[in-house]
Amino acid sequence: MPETTRRADRLTGNRYGNRPTMKDVAARAGVGLKTVSRVVNGEPGVTPDTERRVQEAIDALGFRRNDSARVLRKGRTASIGLILEDLADPFYGPLSRAVEEVARAHGALLINGSSAEDPEREQELALALCARRVDGLVVIPAGDDHRYLEPEIRAGVATVFVDRPAGRIDADVVLSDNYGGARDGVAHLIAHGHRRIGFIGDMPRIHTAAERLRGYRAAMEDAGITVAERWMSLGATDPERVRRAAEEMLAGPDPVTAVFAGNNRVTVTVVRVLAERSRRVALVGFDDFELADLLQPGVTVVAQDSAALGRTAAERLFRQLDGTLIAPERIELPTRLVTRGSGELPPTD
Amino acid sequence: MPETTRRADRLTGNRYGNRPTMKDVAARAGVGLKTVSRVVNGEPGVTPDTERRVQEAIDALGFRRNDSARVLRKGRTASIGLILEDLADPFYGPLSRAVEEVARAHGALLINGSSAEDPEREQELALALCARRVDGLVVIPAGDDHRYLEPEIRAGVATVFVDRPAGRIDADVVLSDNYGGARDGVAHLIAHGHRRIGFIGDMPRIHTAAERLRGYRAAMEDAGITVAERWMSLGATDPERVRRAAEEMLAGPDPVTAVFAGNNRVTVTVVRVLAERSRRVALVGFDDFELADLLQPGVTVVAQDSAALGRTAAERLFRQLDGTLIAPERIELPTRLVTRGSGELPPTD
Repeated sequence: MPETTRRADRLTGNRYGNRPTMKDVAARAGVGLKTVSRVVNGEPGVTPDTERRVQEAIDALGFRRNDSARVLRKGRTASIGLILEDLADPFYGPLSRAVEEVARAHGALLINGSSAEDPEREQELALALCARRVDGLVVIPAGDDHRYLEPEIRAGVATVFVDRPAGRIDADVVLSDNYGGARDGVAHLIAHGHRRIGFIGDMPRIHTAAERLRGYRAAMEDAGITVAERWMSLGATDPERVRRAAEEMLAGPDPVTAVFAGNNRVTVTVVRVLAERSRRVALVGFDDFELADLLQPGVTVVAQDSAALGRTAAERLFRQLDGTLIAPERIELPTRLVTRGSGELPPTD
Repeated sequence: MPETTRRADRLTGNRYGNRPTMKDVAARAGVGLKTVSRVVNGEPGVTPDTERRVQEAIDALGFRRNDSARVLRKGRTASIGLILEDLADPFYGPLSRAVEEVARAHGALLINGSSAEDPEREQELALALCARRVDGLVVIPAGDDHRYLEPEIRAGVATVFVDRPAGRIDADVVLSDNYGGARDGVAHLIAHGHRRIGFIGDMPRIHTAAERLRGYRAAMEDAGITVAERWMSLGATDPERVRRAAEEMLAGPDPVTAVFAGNNRVTVTVVRVLAERSRRVALVGFDDFELADLLQPGVTVVAQDSAALGRTAAERLFRQLDGTLIAPERIELPTRLVTRGSGELPPTD
């Protein structure tokens, strides 16, 4: 079956097509059905050479044992997987909880894992969850090549990417408007009189970091401001790195009068650095965070709706499983500027 | 084999004993090995009656298909499961990350799920992870009866409870000193001159909430203070409930001059309520939280080391799997009072 036909096939109730069967594996490996069954079920009585042939056929066809009938019979619950980037980043809390609520509404369990921003680990975890027969995966990708998921997708695993797009495969993606949000946040600082505005962001290979930097550059260009290289710092978001970046921008003969912080991890460290200084420096952060309104001044943020990201992605996943979707889409959710004081401070130079 | 012998059996390299085999299932069900294999692998050719008999034998023996050889052969990775209470509670972030780091150091993947404080959901999730062949479970329990795990434990699944103890089974448990920490925090308020001190905590059926209330009562009793019923409020930690509780204690003819907040979810709402008032009310919270030091005043807390809880539990889990543990233990980690201003305010009545 050609790829395009398979993806559009509505008869199977799933746009991702028919699962290959044990019969297909047996035919491809040139062995009997019983032999395939033995290999799949880890039973003895198969020579290493035959096992290798069967395993190659399994890999080539993307065969997965379809246990749904057995699962139902034993009263086990369906499940979906969620791959996060960092278990301790509060941004992912509401997103995870939203995915979980949608899963529960569909009678499915959610199981999570973290890639720790490591593409290899993301792949290992995604395939481990597939091997444990999740019906679908919501992925916050660390890597930029997801072709490793193609056999799983062909075998019927629903897949939605969230927060960052998939790489090199055609998949459902739910994103925030990172570019537009950052552009609005920086334009807000410019509207309050700032021209020397710093940008501190995450590693540039991360989609959201790159998009937010692009938004910063666009807002500066729109205002006719030439950006100095030393106003921009991209890298890991650990407190030490961010602190150093902020202190460098705030020092020297022409220090920045405002900072745009590229995510909530950056913002909390910049808040800390600014609290130690007497000079008032304006701040707008990407991402809202708990207690931002109770700091003095309150922290102005470009808020993403992280619960809506999770909910939209999970609902899309279940629509894939229902077979009611035709083709992958890219969905972009708006951000919202929340003014609280720190972003409305005037320049002090 | 009697229960006690099985649990202490060191020859198997696992204190939790020998796994039952397909042969044991076949013998108990009075069928052939092939029939058991068919049922286990969801293959056709078994009558419903026979299938029911085999399933009963599987349940009675706690049989789980031991796929470890197969898993290794296919290059799949070992895994452990972590059951949390709430994916969005920041207290669990460092705990989860610590469990994950220990898992990784042992070459295992971590998969998580959330019980959402629902005992049924905890059970469903724990059994679902076992069915997906995790080697062990770290559980933050929502329920108080964990006998449902006994067949899994007998079948070789390592199990450690963390943050709260297991119910009705003998298991490894890693806890914070909730009683001592709360007692110290309340004694700190008393030492600063407070006598009318409120306690706002989580639902009393939750072990940590009950222990912290017990610590509050002990500190008050030690100081010879009779606690008024209206100074204590236990219930859900949603902002509406906590706000109402705080406002009631702060109103009336004899309002509290200090509040002890039973966990980080309670503390952030109490901070919010106090920020709206002109009268200065002292506050000590159980659990540290991000930005507590940057609020004005800084928030004095009884800090748990949530990363150490996770690390200790996970290390204990792998020692169970290594077979180097003899018997379950209860490990209690100390808390630490961190003074930042809010807990050192004098009474204002």
